Amino acid sequence: MKLLRFGEKGNEKPGIESDGKWLDCSTFGEDWSEEFLENNGLERLKTWLKSNSSKLQEISKNTRLAAPIKRPSKIICVGLNYSLHAKESGMPLPETPILFMKATTSLCGPNDPILIPKNSTKTDWEVELAVVIGKKALYIEKENAMDYVAGYCLHNDVSERDFQLHHGGQWVKGKSADHFAPLGPYLVTKEEIKDPHNLRLWLKVNGQMMQDSNTSDLVFDIPTLVSYISQYMTLLPGDIISTGTPSGVGLGLKPPRYLVHGDEVELGIEGLGEAKQIAIDFNKS
Amino acid sequence: MKLLRFGEKGNEKPGIESDGKWLDCSTFGEDWSEEFLENNGLERLKTWLKSNSSKLQEISKNTRLAAPIKRPSKIICVGLNYSLHAKESGMPLPETPILFMKATTSLCGPNDPILIPKNSTKTDWEVELAVVIGKKALYIEKENAMDYVAGYCLHNDVSERDFQLHHGGQWVKGKSADHFAPLGPYLVTKEEIKDPHNLRLWLKVNGQMMQDSNTSDLVFDIPTLVSYISQYMTLLPGDIISTGTPSGVGLGLKPPRYLVHGDEVELGIEGLGEAKQIAIDFNKS
Repeated sequence: MKLLRFGEKGNEKPGIESDGKWLDCSTFGEDWSEEFLENNGLERLKTWLKSNSSKLQEISKNTRLAAPIKRPSKIICVGLNYSLHAKESGMPLPETPILFMKATTSLCGPNDPILIPKNSTKTDWEVELAVVIGKKALYIEKENAMDYVAGYCLHNDVSERDFQLHHGGQWVKGKSADHFAPLGPYLVTKEEIKDPHNLRLWLKVNGQMMQDSNTSDLVFDIPTLVSYISQYMTLLPGDIISTGTPSGVGLGLKPPRYLVHGDEVELGIEGLGEAKQIAIDFNKS
Repeated sequence: MKLLRFGEKGNEKPGIESDGKWLDCSTFGEDWSEEFLENNGLERLKTWLKSNSSKLQEISKNTRLAAPIKRPSKIICVGLNYSLHAKESGMPLPETPILFMKATTSLCGPNDPILIPKNSTKTDWEVELAVVIGKKALYIEKENAMDYVAGYCLHNDVSERDFQLHHGGQWVKGKSADHFAPLGPYLVTKEEIKDPHNLRLWLKVNGQMMQDSNTSDLVFDIPTLVSYISQYMTLLPGDIISTGTPSGVGLGLKPPRYLVHGDEVELGIEGLGEAKQIAIDFNKS
């Protein structure tokens, strides 16, 4: 299944994508949330769709999409998880996964604008495969880790490099501004993706290809990450693990290049859909 | 007002402390949550109590207390915010606040056990004054910052020093285990505390005083922190800012000392109450 959420901010409704159409699932009576996943929602939805999918109302493709999962308890990101990206960042390849968090207030819809924050001069892009957790996970073995995965989403881990690297301390400062986590279009359930470790992912700025790689280049794969993170904290249904970005971010260019007001960012991952985000500069709007 | 939450995990109810008694506020019909604060809950509760406080049922002091606020969107912690603590940690005094996040899954009641995680050998204590945000805050000036504060709580920012400092990357790894954020006993609303920058805070291990300081020694005060953090992310009602710990943590002792199975940690802040936590070692239980 491909789950989506649509409608204006604060009044979002659940839906699905099916045969290229967006369908309203409001009549299912639940949002796509932690509680939904925790209470076996994906199985219940699948069963419900068997007898109800023909009755669902089609949604116009002009409708705003929201993040395909309602605000989760946390967003955990993995740093430097593609070897060429570590190199372009001037950092050594990590021996263990580098983890940091993004505030969940940074979540937004896949085609919402990227808001360049006040006083930012270095807002950068990062296409990433995000994993959505399906059930509570603590001290999970790598061998069983995929049992805890609900599915995958396209994610742009938008980053302010000055805030992240030069404002003192930890990376969270450069990762947590509003609209720094455009997620979706879809939460694609795991059975739809044969091999999550062989998906092309790419990102363009104003039509120019900046990132073009494959999840086969991940340093730490998805089962390793789920297992590893669960040694440090409890993962809840709906929690997001963003698995890191390949090379081609603005920081790594010579000279570096950052988003400016009006820039158009397009990104996609094979099987997970595409998104388009226009940069809006707070300082100019 | 002094708000509390009580009852077994997953089935917690709202209450208050009044004249030394704990009173059940279930009949108010709302939990102490983001929504409660967002919808002017503190004012509504105050009014409601005027005509209802005499009818409230007393709760036994043997009842388990939960964190006094339902799971918020985020817990933001401030590092090295007391000068002597920076020194004992071998770190320079920060020029700007150092921020990191704790997973909200680490929250627990004030007297719940501290769970020493699997493979931990360096679980440490940190008494801290936590600020609870009262309304949505973004790009707030220092002068207005206190308008965005709902109140204060006692917090033990439990930390695993190996996970935090020697497992690669960011501090979040050593800050986010379950029961690493015992909060409470109370959310004390701000009008009850004349000067939050002149409160004694202390922590004992097995009866021995380890931390004994005063919030007057904070490097960055509360308005500065609220304003500063709101430049990097949106703060939501219920969000917790833990303002940093004074000197006397286990890491700073010569030789360092960490919690072991059965250790009894007691802590308190003037006006905010006290808490007691027994360390339980996952590896031994």
